[in-house]
Amino acid sequence: MHIVFVTGAAGFIGSTLVDRLLLDGKQVVGWDNFSTGQRRFLESALRHPGFKLVEGDNLDSTALTKAMAGCDTVFHLAANADVRFGLEHPAKDLQQNTIATFNVLEAMRANGIRRIAFSSTGSVYGEAEKIPTPEDAPFPVQTSLYAASKISGEGMISSYCEGFKFEGYIFRFVSILGERYTHGHVFDFYRQLLEHPGQLKVLGDGSQRKSYLYVQDCLSAMLHVMNQGTAKKARHGVEIYNLGADEYVQVNNSIGFICGALGLEPRLEYTGGQRGWVGDNPFIFLQTAKIRATGWQPTLTIEQGIGRTLQWLQQNQWVYETRH
Amino acid sequence: MHIVFVTGAAGFIGSTLVDRLLLDGKQVVGWDNFSTGQRRFLESALRHPGFKLVEGDNLDSTALTKAMAGCDTVFHLAANADVRFGLEHPAKDLQQNTIATFNVLEAMRANGIRRIAFSSTGSVYGEAEKIPTPEDAPFPVQTSLYAASKISGEGMISSYCEGFKFEGYIFRFVSILGERYTHGHVFDFYRQLLEHPGQLKVLGDGSQRKSYLYVQDCLSAMLHVMNQGTAKKARHGVEIYNLGADEYVQVNNSIGFICGALGLEPRLEYTGGQRGWVGDNPFIFLQTAKIRATGWQPTLTIEQGIGRTLQWLQQNQWVYETRH
Repeated sequence: MHIVFVTGAAGFIGSTLVDRLLLDGKQVVGWDNFSTGQRRFLESALRHPGFKLVEGDNLDSTALTKAMAGCDTVFHLAANADVRFGLEHPAKDLQQNTIATFNVLEAMRANGIRRIAFSSTGSVYGEAEKIPTPEDAPFPVQTSLYAASKISGEGMISSYCEGFKFEGYIFRFVSILGERYTHGHVFDFYRQLLEHPGQLKVLGDGSQRKSYLYVQDCLSAMLHVMNQGTAKKARHGVEIYNLGADEYVQVNNSIGFICGALGLEPRLEYTGGQRGWVGDNPFIFLQTAKIRATGWQPTLTIEQGIGRTLQWLQQNQWVYETRH
Repeated sequence: MHIVFVTGAAGFIGSTLVDRLLLDGKQVVGWDNFSTGQRRFLESALRHPGFKLVEGDNLDSTALTKAMAGCDTVFHLAANADVRFGLEHPAKDLQQNTIATFNVLEAMRANGIRRIAFSSTGSVYGEAEKIPTPEDAPFPVQTSLYAASKISGEGMISSYCEGFKFEGYIFRFVSILGERYTHGHVFDFYRQLLEHPGQLKVLGDGSQRKSYLYVQDCLSAMLHVMNQGTAKKARHGVEIYNLGADEYVQVNNSIGFICGALGLEPRLEYTGGQRGWVGDNPFIFLQTAKIRATGWQPTLTIEQGIGRTLQWLQQNQWVYETRH
């Protein structure tokens, strides 16, 4: 891993990865269409001689193939990460996740690049009956277009590993938290509390149980197994890892952390029901024995991760203005 | 189920379904792009007043949406069924299976049609460790682009069932045999024996174990659960069924049946190895307890199915001339 291509390089996780790879002495080509990415996240990277930014879209195969030339590893993080509104624009997950991933794979093949890391999601387990959910849980029924598109991406990647001898690392993330976080429940809650500190609207009944992971812990896990080269020895040239903390929190607990940290006691208004939205999974908790067996472990608890996230949001309220 | 839309209506399974639906008194709109479909398979249907043929491609959303108007049920059977050559044209499965299925779902939504039957495949289990493989087998790693595209189709369908209240029937087929069969090992072996009766080239070492199902038994199973409306009561509005026989045969056994029926003793030439091709699954055998619990059972054994297939191929050698 010397010259690394990162799709979604201006995103929350992508830009954090870029900084970390540069710190590790790698050369990095960042690729982003800036549909949701933030130029400010790349400010420091852009001053680094080892970094090159190429602005482009994964649906533009020609530009993508050209931009990737000379790289030896691809982190494919660009995606429509909007799980909740999939039903309002069903084509988005197909285009930005499924077709985009295919284009990334073909661009790699055209350039003779074979090592890929992919950000998949714990949502692929649907409404799992086995919790904590292991990587080989019973074959799930997909309940969101987002997860369906990620499963599609996983399937194409593992087929390229089998058929074209790619080396694939698929990571099924829980929700990721930390600095540069610009999407999800902490983001939404803090925005509401900025606008009206006395009131907080909560989707569902607040009993949903979710797991989170701090972004640097997430990146450590990915880099750890890729440095070990675990997929090289895997049966089909691909390894799939759940990434998450060994704990979960209820949305209500999370509200407690947030309000406690901010010193607020808002009136809570629940929209009601077990689910925050159609396709919302009321309980996501992944078994992480596989990634832990490689020697990785997280450094922050969920509460600490939420704390860091809040602190960063407090210091970077500009993200609420620039976001679409 | 009164006015039924069938994609892939001129194909092996599609045209057989069309004839059966017409016999049942349904009105049928057949849709096919004739990339592999055969007009001759629809000869009898085209004489029936209840049948309308519309020639078109699943990638042409506008025409597809228009053609579907007025129907209440869709059998989405059109697909690139070419499992073996996926690596030679990786975009084909994405376009003809994944994107095509998305277009079918969107055309249904535009027309207010909610009932869909989908031909998926036992290949989605990858190289299953649990054999016979049940529907809730451990979450598999995909090893072919064909299966990856079918999993993608399944995921979108179940998400539409969850999100848009569709009623979905997903069928994971083993290889289907019978009259109008124009693809697969019996087809290939018979062609070889027609060309040179003294010699037969076999992919792999002949030890691959596969399961097959007779086409009329396959259709009976589909129509049976759809008439029962099982998916209406299902958790996410979707039911997934394995369809297969309760037995499997080795490729070598199958060669025995074929040569026995033809009275030939060719010299066998094996290409060697456990697999017929990259991504070939050396052992496919599905557990069919779920579909059997609904009251369905197959009427023909695999050997009888191969017999019918051979008989039809002998009487319809024109398929070898017209096929691409």
